[in-house]
Amino acid sequence: MTFDIASAVAELSSALPASILATDPDITVSYSRDMAMLASSEIPAVVVRARDTADVSTVMKIASKYGVPVHPRGAGSGLAGSSNATTDSIVLSLASMNEILEINTVDRYARLQPGVVNLDFRKALEPHGLFYPPDPSSYDWCTIGGNLSTNAGGLCCVKYGVTTDFVMGLEVVLADGEVLRTGRRTVKGVAGYDLARVFVGSEGTLGVITEATVSLKPLPQAPCTLVATFGSVYDAGEAVQKVIGASLVPSLLEIMDRTTIRAVDKMHKLGLDQNAEALLLAQSDSGGARADMEMDGLELACKEAGANEIHRTNDLEEGNMLLFARRQALPALEALKGSSLVDDVAVPRSQMANFLGGCEQIAADTDTTIGTCGHAGDGNMHPTICVDPADEDEMVRARDAFGRILDLGLSMGGTVTGEHGIGSIKIDFLAKEIGPIGLRVHRTIKNALDPQGILNPGKLFTP
Amino acid sequence: MTFDIASAVAELSSALPASILATDPDITVSYSRDMAMLASSEIPAVVVRARDTADVSTVMKIASKYGVPVHPRGAGSGLAGSSNATTDSIVLSLASMNEILEINTVDRYARLQPGVVNLDFRKALEPHGLFYPPDPSSYDWCTIGGNLSTNAGGLCCVKYGVTTDFVMGLEVVLADGEVLRTGRRTVKGVAGYDLARVFVGSEGTLGVITEATVSLKPLPQAPCTLVATFGSVYDAGEAVQKVIGASLVPSLLEIMDRTTIRAVDKMHKLGLDQNAEALLLAQSDSGGARADMEMDGLELACKEAGANEIHRTNDLEEGNMLLFARRQALPALEALKGSSLVDDVAVPRSQMANFLGGCEQIAADTDTTIGTCGHAGDGNMHPTICVDPADEDEMVRARDAFGRILDLGLSMGGTVTGEHGIGSIKIDFLAKEIGPIGLRVHRTIKNALDPQGILNPGKLFTP
Repeated sequence: MTFDIASAVAELSSALPASILATDPDITVSYSRDMAMLASSEIPAVVVRARDTADVSTVMKIASKYGVPVHPRGAGSGLAGSSNATTDSIVLSLASMNEILEINTVDRYARLQPGVVNLDFRKALEPHGLFYPPDPSSYDWCTIGGNLSTNAGGLCCVKYGVTTDFVMGLEVVLADGEVLRTGRRTVKGVAGYDLARVFVGSEGTLGVITEATVSLKPLPQAPCTLVATFGSVYDAGEAVQKVIGASLVPSLLEIMDRTTIRAVDKMHKLGLDQNAEALLLAQSDSGGARADMEMDGLELACKEAGANEIHRTNDLEEGNMLLFARRQALPALEALKGSSLVDDVAVPRSQMANFLGGCEQIAADTDTTIGTCGHAGDGNMHPTICVDPADEDEMVRARDAFGRILDLGLSMGGTVTGEHGIGSIKIDFLAKEIGPIGLRVHRTIKNALDPQGILNPGKLFTP
Repeated sequence: MTFDIASAVAELSSALPASILATDPDITVSYSRDMAMLASSEIPAVVVRARDTADVSTVMKIASKYGVPVHPRGAGSGLAGSSNATTDSIVLSLASMNEILEINTVDRYARLQPGVVNLDFRKALEPHGLFYPPDPSSYDWCTIGGNLSTNAGGLCCVKYGVTTDFVMGLEVVLADGEVLRTGRRTVKGVAGYDLARVFVGSEGTLGVITEATVSLKPLPQAPCTLVATFGSVYDAGEAVQKVIGASLVPSLLEIMDRTTIRAVDKMHKLGLDQNAEALLLAQSDSGGARADMEMDGLELACKEAGANEIHRTNDLEEGNMLLFARRQALPALEALKGSSLVDDVAVPRSQMANFLGGCEQIAADTDTTIGTCGHAGDGNMHPTICVDPADEDEMVRARDAFGRILDLGLSMGGTVTGEHGIGSIKIDFLAKEIGPIGLRVHRTIKNALDPQGILNPGKLFTP
């Protein structure tokens, strides 16, 4: 069908109530992009705030009839431009589909809609003694739908895994508006292709997720917390190696470099050691004697790696304060110059310290300020380039640094995205990482499921 | 290209050394099928015993040139007919590609070829203090390639997960002979579609896996073992519920029903309680105080559920003997009448006891002998219908029972295969489970990656 945005908007207006449609650019602009500074965006022709699966199906049927691009979105907390819109497109907001449909305490799963906010879901599970681990830094406002689309990670991943590890089944509206239900409610199951995990992490390019069945864990014990400072990132890296080598599985193992420590302390006056080159933050949520054993192991690893200072606490308030320091890393780094380019590289854990050292070198070579924090336990680092968006020269250098960091990660056997996704900002780097045959297979699957290319075009790879 | 088996065989003979080719039916017949009694098979035109990825690529290039079906196979230990051959086809054996290419102790992964036997891999990891959990019952002879193709489970899954949970990356030869490398060596990574997990469990219908990168766990502690007998399967089911409800994660939690207990004891004279209606076997591999705590919890759960007898042991020999009893369930049931139809249903854990009760009813209704054992911790049950293959009337009733068991599983929100796969024996039931739209998406992906339909045709679904 030939592209016809005017007819598509007209048909949407007659098929759906005016209350869930917006065409006024003053409104639609706020649905046009996510938080990724490097990503471009345009104002869409129309925004639809879907109420249910039927609405989503209606949108996809009309979109495919008129060959119109559809950009699905959740809260817009993404960091790769995955939900950014183009002119003459439909933005499909799933934020209003925010019901938790079932919490099954016996078989330990929940069914929920994509618009449920991660933190709201966690809170709803708590009274049942249950826990959904993936906790991206934006967990207090990002939605489960966005988490599924980017296969989001977070701080808990080192012990519990990422979003895809919890997905049992999905309802997905396909490009032509048909509704696919795939997956299961059982712990195990191998009937047919693992379709659910194809849609997870596909950033809205293969279908629109309208419901998820996710597995749950028992609520962990109140965490014990350890913070250690080091005279070099290599010492901190050695401590992480020792933790892994000792078969310890902390529930959280985070790192902040000197720039990040200082930025956080400048913003929040937490009394962090300004002279430390690196800080490790670790928790155990095993409780009781097990937690003591794990904390002893963590302390020993830090000591043996030559930590300057080690502080342990079982006090929940203090632990939360230390965790707050880590969660404030990005805003604090942004505050240094007004904005930031957040990178997201995962390297084999053995390469973490070398990667941090490499980032310092890149900062020096490109005359930029780069603060790195990240998930030390799984090698997923977030070098954050602090920028003043108004400083054009600095922006050029920052973009250069951004790319060099990705190349550095690739050269160490890493990946250009550990948890944020490719979006529109890393298209060239995905091609580098997966190579021409990988790209061909990606396109083959995309073309098979979305032959018109209407689902979130301009993301992941070129058509 | 028009189908031309003669030209394909001729071209294979000139492209590959005679030592890795076989066309003599006396030899090729032994490559024609797996262990699934219900599955039909034919003798292939040629068997190729690939030495390396290049051989596999050569086979696929020639096969696609002449439109000839290729049936990849490992050890042939499958239970669904997934590797069964058709006349005028190529059987591609990966059994000779059996090298472990790398064991990375720091980043905890291994790279290995598909022909490596599961147990050999486990043994090779042991000196490094590392562990690859998935352990199908055939672990002493099945290959990793087969495990990947069926997304195999096993006894360890209840604590550690199934094959797909350990796959980081794959090398796959595509239908046209191109070599795809996909995945990563990092703990986390979300660059592009999760292609590796599309190939895992696809039973050779989308590509031929020639190398895998899998993540490893630290070697667990020596297990403590508990065995408990019950006066009814419902009591045993209640014990399992209590274990899950208490947030205990045993490293193994298996169930055997009365028929299975008796069959095993008849074969091996282990002194099992002949009057028990159900037996639970559980282990903890956490070691130390943690194991004691877990074992106390398991014992309490069994006691509260009304167990007749409970026996605990930290003795490794005795634990192995009890585990041997469980691992001998299938051969012992087979010995009752000469052969068996092994079913493989996973139900939500809360439904396990009802499912076992339902299987007993089906045995009565169809006048068959059905022994059920299975992975109680994850609801994956193996009702095994004991048959004398020469008794045609019994075979008719057994097939009827086989299908009724699958329907029972589906009616309880379960899946028709927890770990064995669909193969050729459950094609109709996959269609029932995933419905017409699910089937359409399966076909779409299959057609996209294998447009000629030469990769293991006759498996999973009709074209």
